[in-house]
Amino acid sequence: MSANRAVAYVGPGQVEVQDIDFPALELRDGPGVDPANVGRQCQHGVVLKVLATNICGSDQHMVRGRTTAPRDLVLGHEITGEVIEAGRDVEFVQPGDIVSVPFNIACGRCRNCKERQTGICLNVNPARPGGAYGYVDMGGWVGGQAEYVMVPYADFNLLRFRDRDQALAKLLDLTMLSDIFPTGFHGAVTAGVGVGSTVYVAGAGPVGLAAAASARLLGAAVVIVGDLNAERLAQARGFGCETVDLTQGGLGERIAELLGVPEVDSAIDAVGFEAKAQEAGAGEAPATVLNSVMEVTRAGGSLGIPGLYVTEDPGGVDSEARHGSLRIRLGLGWAKSHTLHTGQCPVMRYHRQLAMAILHDRVHIAKAVNATPIPLDDAPRGYAEFDRGASRKYVLDPHGALDGVRAV
Amino acid sequence: MSANRAVAYVGPGQVEVQDIDFPALELRDGPGVDPANVGRQCQHGVVLKVLATNICGSDQHMVRGRTTAPRDLVLGHEITGEVIEAGRDVEFVQPGDIVSVPFNIACGRCRNCKERQTGICLNVNPARPGGAYGYVDMGGWVGGQAEYVMVPYADFNLLRFRDRDQALAKLLDLTMLSDIFPTGFHGAVTAGVGVGSTVYVAGAGPVGLAAAASARLLGAAVVIVGDLNAERLAQARGFGCETVDLTQGGLGERIAELLGVPEVDSAIDAVGFEAKAQEAGAGEAPATVLNSVMEVTRAGGSLGIPGLYVTEDPGGVDSEARHGSLRIRLGLGWAKSHTLHTGQCPVMRYHRQLAMAILHDRVHIAKAVNATPIPLDDAPRGYAEFDRGASRKYVLDPHGALDGVRAV
Amino acid sequence: MSANRAVAYVGPGQVEVQDIDFPALELRDGPGVDPANVGRQCQHGVVLKVLATNICGSDQHMVRGRTTAPRDLVLGHEITGEVIEAGRDVEFVQPGDIVSVPFNIACGRCRNCKERQTGICLNVNPARPGGAYGYVDMGGWVGGQAEYVMVPYADFNLLRFRDRDQALAKLLDLTMLSDIFPTGFHGAVTAGVGVGSTVYVAGAGPVGLAAAASARLLGAAVVIVGDLNAERLAQARGFGCETVDLTQGGLGERIAELLGVPEVDSAIDAVGFEAKAQEAGAGEAPATVLNSVMEVTRAGGSLGIPGLYVTEDPGGVDSEARHGSLRIRLGLGWAKSHTLHTGQCPVMRYHRQLAMAILHDRVHIAKAVNATPIPLDDAPRGYAEFDRGASRKYVLDPHGALDGVRAV
Amino acid sequence: MSANRAVAYVGPGQVEVQDIDFPALELRDGPGVDPANVGRQCQHGVVLKVLATNICGSDQHMVRGRTTAPRDLVLGHEITGEVIEAGRDVEFVQPGDIVSVPFNIACGRCRNCKERQTGICLNVNPARPGGAYGYVDMGGWVGGQAEYVMVPYADFNLLRFRDRDQALAKLLDLTMLSDIFPTGFHGAVTAGVGVGSTVYVAGAGPVGLAAAASARLLGAAVVIVGDLNAERLAQARGFGCETVDLTQGGLGERIAELLGVPEVDSAIDAVGFEAKAQEAGAGEAPATVLNSVMEVTRAGGSLGIPGLYVTEDPGGVDSEARHGSLRIRLGLGWAKSHTLHTGQCPVMRYHRQLAMAILHDRVHIAKAVNATPIPLDDAPRGYAEFDRGASRKYVLDPHGALDGVRAV
Repeated sequence: MSANRAVAYVGPGQVEVQDIDFPALELRDGPGVDPANVGRQCQHGVVLKVLATNICGSDQHMVRGRTTAPRDLVLGHEITGEVIEAGRDVEFVQPGDIVSVPFNIACGRCRNCKERQTGICLNVNPARPGGAYGYVDMGGWVGGQAEYVMVPYADFNLLRFRDRDQALAKLLDLTMLSDIFPTGFHGAVTAGVGVGSTVYVAGAGPVGLAAAASARLLGAAVVIVGDLNAERLAQARGFGCETVDLTQGGLGERIAELLGVPEVDSAIDAVGFEAKAQEAGAGEAPATVLNSVMEVTRAGGSLGIPGLYVTEDPGGVDSEARHGSLRIRLGLGWAKSHTLHTGQCPVMRYHRQLAMAILHDRVHIAKAVNATPIPLDDAPRGYAEFDRGASRKYVLDPHGALDGVRAV
Repeated sequence: MSANRAVAYVGPGQVEVQDIDFPALELRDGPGVDPANVGRQCQHGVVLKVLATNICGSDQHMVRGRTTAPRDLVLGHEITGEVIEAGRDVEFVQPGDIVSVPFNIACGRCRNCKERQTGICLNVNPARPGGAYGYVDMGGWVGGQAEYVMVPYADFNLLRFRDRDQALAKLLDLTMLSDIFPTGFHGAVTAGVGVGSTVYVAGAGPVGLAAAASARLLGAAVVIVGDLNAERLAQARGFGCETVDLTQGGLGERIAELLGVPEVDSAIDAVGFEAKAQEAGAGEAPATVLNSVMEVTRAGGSLGIPGLYVTEDPGGVDSEARHGSLRIRLGLGWAKSHTLHTGQCPVMRYHRQLAMAILHDRVHIAKAVNATPIPLDDAPRGYAEFDRGASRKYVLDPHGALDGVRAV
Repeated sequence: MSANRAVAYVGPGQVEVQDIDFPALELRDGPGVDPANVGRQCQHGVVLKVLATNICGSDQHMVRGRTTAPRDLVLGHEITGEVIEAGRDVEFVQPGDIVSVPFNIACGRCRNCKERQTGICLNVNPARPGGAYGYVDMGGWVGGQAEYVMVPYADFNLLRFRDRDQALAKLLDLTMLSDIFPTGFHGAVTAGVGVGSTVYVAGAGPVGLAAAASARLLGAAVVIVGDLNAERLAQARGFGCETVDLTQGGLGERIAELLGVPEVDSAIDAVGFEAKAQEAGAGEAPATVLNSVMEVTRAGGSLGIPGLYVTEDPGGVDSEARHGSLRIRLGLGWAKSHTLHTGQCPVMRYHRQLAMAILHDRVHIAKAVNATPIPLDDAPRGYAEFDRGASRKYVLDPHGALDGVRAV
Repeated sequence: MSANRAVAYVGPGQVEVQDIDFPALELRDGPGVDPANVGRQCQHGVVLKVLATNICGSDQHMVRGRTTAPRDLVLGHEITGEVIEAGRDVEFVQPGDIVSVPFNIACGRCRNCKERQTGICLNVNPARPGGAYGYVDMGGWVGGQAEYVMVPYADFNLLRFRDRDQALAKLLDLTMLSDIFPTGFHGAVTAGVGVGSTVYVAGAGPVGLAAAASARLLGAAVVIVGDLNAERLAQARGFGCETVDLTQGGLGERIAELLGVPEVDSAIDAVGFEAKAQEAGAGEAPATVLNSVMEVTRAGGSLGIPGLYVTEDPGGVDSEARHGSLRIRLGLGWAKSHTLHTGQCPVMRYHRQLAMAILHDRVHIAKAVNATPIPLDDAPRGYAEFDRGASRKYVLDPHGALDGVRAV
């Protein structure tokens, strides 16, 4: 059996590239695999040669030691690749196909999958609804920051690109379909963004930038992005957004300057529970972003919350935060008749249409998030730079498929 | 000008029936009237002879002294009546018409009203979006627990019953259209209740019972109602609901007994911020209901939250609760991809269709909430009994219109 | 391998019970099988022992000779059964499971299936989107009016009942989940029926009765059913509908008598292209029902059209009708801003929730459609009586599973 | 009383500019006024100085003599203006305000208006639901191709621009908000157009071009426009659309060339009943466009039908067409599970958000439709050129407000 190499978590602040087994059409025992999933046969699966696999902000939660992720957990849930082997139950994808993999693993056969809620599939994670590759408590499916990876329920999960050459030429954009672009888009859609909307996006990391690009693609009139990081704000201005430097405070005032009123129609929390207080020198304030978006969203508005909030957080600021219980100004939201949409994006609900938008040049998502290809071996550097706030979306390139590919 | 009598708040725990002015087509100065609303002309309004006007749980928040309501505030926002005078700009209702009044006052001309968000009208309350009769901070419109009341923007706000005799005969049911029935229905609709749903309703007060009756009308397969009050639970069982006695704990276990799984499709928080901890002898626990409904709602489910949460609560359990900031297990909701729908019900979105259901005997809402007519002069007794947990919905009858009218 | 017996079409007006092969996990050549489907392997499929299988109005189109169905085509697409064999790729159903089969065959892996449009699956019928059992031009999948039948993509298609005893006891109701109940429900949903609606259902055959029962389950205030057949109208009155005898004309007048206005909110065409003109002695008038429902539906209303309209009709009244081109009063519909919803019901979108409504006694669909079990051998009689207008839904009982089962 | 001048229909093929009365806050008798509307008081109305008023394709139906429009009917329903007088019941607009007028007249007080169906208001046209300015059988409200016009129910109907200077500078774009832009947008929305859609727009007249621009604003991946007129197709290519010259036939083939498949996700019929057969030299074929869009729309797709179909057409090609009954290939649509959305656009549902898109430079609608200002006195020339197929949207400029204003 041929070899495989992958990025693994080895301790707080540390990842390394390790030799691991070549994928089988079976989920074998290993770090983080749910015992009830060990030995699960996957003739419905395929093995992919990974062509692009991105580092995600949610990977950082594990790498910072904010979770119970075990040592040697293979990371990576943003995967684009080429099919090199297909199980006997696979009928509609074939070796040679270039495909995008949704980060949510879904069986395609349970109530939730049938109702388009693929983010909370009932059959892939014995512990609770919802599975993913390379992620703590998500079933133990082996991560895809690797040369090769196995994708179960391939007919259902994979998005196949019909034109191989076109797909390879646009790979740096298409790699955003596995998570970040649909996740940002889901944030915008659930926030009710439509033609003519005014939108506030909290956070100019990759998800925030993807949400902002999505809001523009949906026809928003004005998209305002707030962050504490000047470099990330500059990135947002690069594709037509207005920005707010939150180190200066005064979010409502700044919105009023731009719109004539201190409120937006729709808001997106693209930060989540690791939010920092806006005052200089202040520490973590896990509900501050959510409370501030309620403040600046008009009565009747919706909040899209793609930013992650967790049930257990060993590093939480207090005992309640360690169990995911936060001080929310619910009374304010209630007085404004807000609707709050939480949870992981069901990627499959959006990836086909977003691929069409990329392939027909209606959106330039790689540019928007400053996609930056690096070799697989440079993953530790990518993780470190991203953690320091680099305004980049790092894309690992295990086989050189991104040589010469540019954001379009 | 003829006299008028009305129920007024006179101090914590106290209401009394007072003589007040006969209504004019103008909002005159008085207790709680927003200064910017004083003198507002209402030729678009009508004067009603009040035929039925209900005591609402949200009135109790004021009467318990949990708000800044001023002394002598005239109460009452659940109003059904007969038009006796119409302003010169009223075109489509006439003296003699029997009408239901939505508790939300709406202009019918602002963006929110045009978008069916009449609960947050931009033009009737100078302080913030949304107005109501007889309620603190809602613009100062004079309450309707009275013999006569003025209703502004009458063409827009009023639901007219075409058949006067039929309307008078069903008055005890139709009086629920002004607030409680649409409010419960809104809770069910926003919780995603539909044909075949399993539903948990937290709270068996009138709103909870109305939500439960609404869930059944929407075709729910199983409706489970939880409360600490045995009499209210018996009321719920009277129209086909399953019940959970929360003094016994074990909500999830009880749901599992009934459904085979410890979770429901949809949940409705019909309690709000004055929630009591479930343990015997425990005090107020403002987020306990919301957290428990997240616990028992399936991944992908929606929460309808008609129960009131407030921005300021002078009687809150701690300094944060006094500003409406509560400890919410947001991480749990996020992990389950929940959607939370808050805010006052926009009554106009539902009252016409619910009137049809009443008039054609598809629902028996007066029976479901145990509608109990009492004379206007008995209002103090009604408030007191309701506050002590009587499983009744008190309906004030200022003109004897309910003599001989029964719930159908 | 054991034998199998099934109902086959043998010529205009004629069906007979034939010996056929026991099902394999493969689609073998036979009458009506699309050549491109011959030999298709179905390890994703199961073999069912058929416990109940209904005669459908759309079977009659074939039996009347109005299609190109070949001789010896095995009929039957309304199937409920017990799994007796499962292919190696089946993961979530097992021998012994009692299951309902949606009449639409769907792969669960194409764009349409993923978007809940299982009625137009792209992978099961080489000729065009959408497949079904035992039906001309729907891929050639062998029909289920038989002792045994093969169901492909079983994990995706089947609705499993968790409680075997309960399922067997309610079999006469549950058998309606494979087609007629969801089809009627889809008609009502797409017609916009909701709480308080007024509804007109054209046609009191089984689909019309199911649509009427569905409208009531959805909370409609008034459901009016029209037909030329007095026995069928009596059936509709049996569960709370109003009726219109169309042999007397005056549909609008009769609606006005019932509602005070000559129009309904929503209308359902449960007749389709074999509509008869309403005048006594007149012949077929394929657009008459659709035009009449536009006439009586209010401006802004929606039309649900579960009644079948075909692309080719060898027996059409004129050359254009023979190609499915009908004289529609589109100008009338346009002036009223109508929306028209056509096409086969995607059963999977509804069957789970409707099963819940049956199992929890919220609807009595077998009674509503007058479900009538008969032995498999009596199928020819069932077809004949149904064709003559019997107000019954015939349910074939190949294994005696319906002995002693009653409509509940 | 000061004078007024307006464009009137004086006979088939003929319009002229006439002196008419200055508007009053009352609907006085005149050509085409419904008798039941004569003398109607409009203290809820305002008088506008008309700043821009467009010639519409639907005006041409009258001018071609295809309707029962009376001689001297004042034309014009696409109006933008400045308020110069307000009735006593008007509360939220004032003299000096620059406003856009939806072509549908709506009371804001009936069931349909409350449900956002302002195109079929129940109170403004005694003859049937729905009213408009300057249009036969729409209530008799005086047209706005004039120096001054009266707008009833002004608080409800008008869209006010907050920044007067900005509004005047963008007047040539904003004038499209009264009809054509929302109408095209409604076509796209009801056709289900969203991010990544492939769309076919039948007809490259102003409505078709507006639909195409709308589809792009909604994020469509590919927008294909078909017409027989080369100049109009060139106009469509000017803002990013693909085009099909229908004089060459082969619509499906051309779509397949562009998309790889012969079908689109969504289609818009922007032609209506005056469709011409595609074959050279052929005459009118009223259903040809609708049938062809069914042909090229994928199974499960939706058809938006903003193109006008009429109930009575004195110039129809045959006796049935004269009563709006057309040969529709309904069987084809049914087999593909199509949904058909008909009727006039309810402009108010969209104009606010589209104004935001214009004001923030997200769409360039005046350029897309080739907006061409001409003096009021040149209206006869405008009508004639437009009737001959000029690829222009003529905007009448009664007061020189468009001097120096350009499409942006």
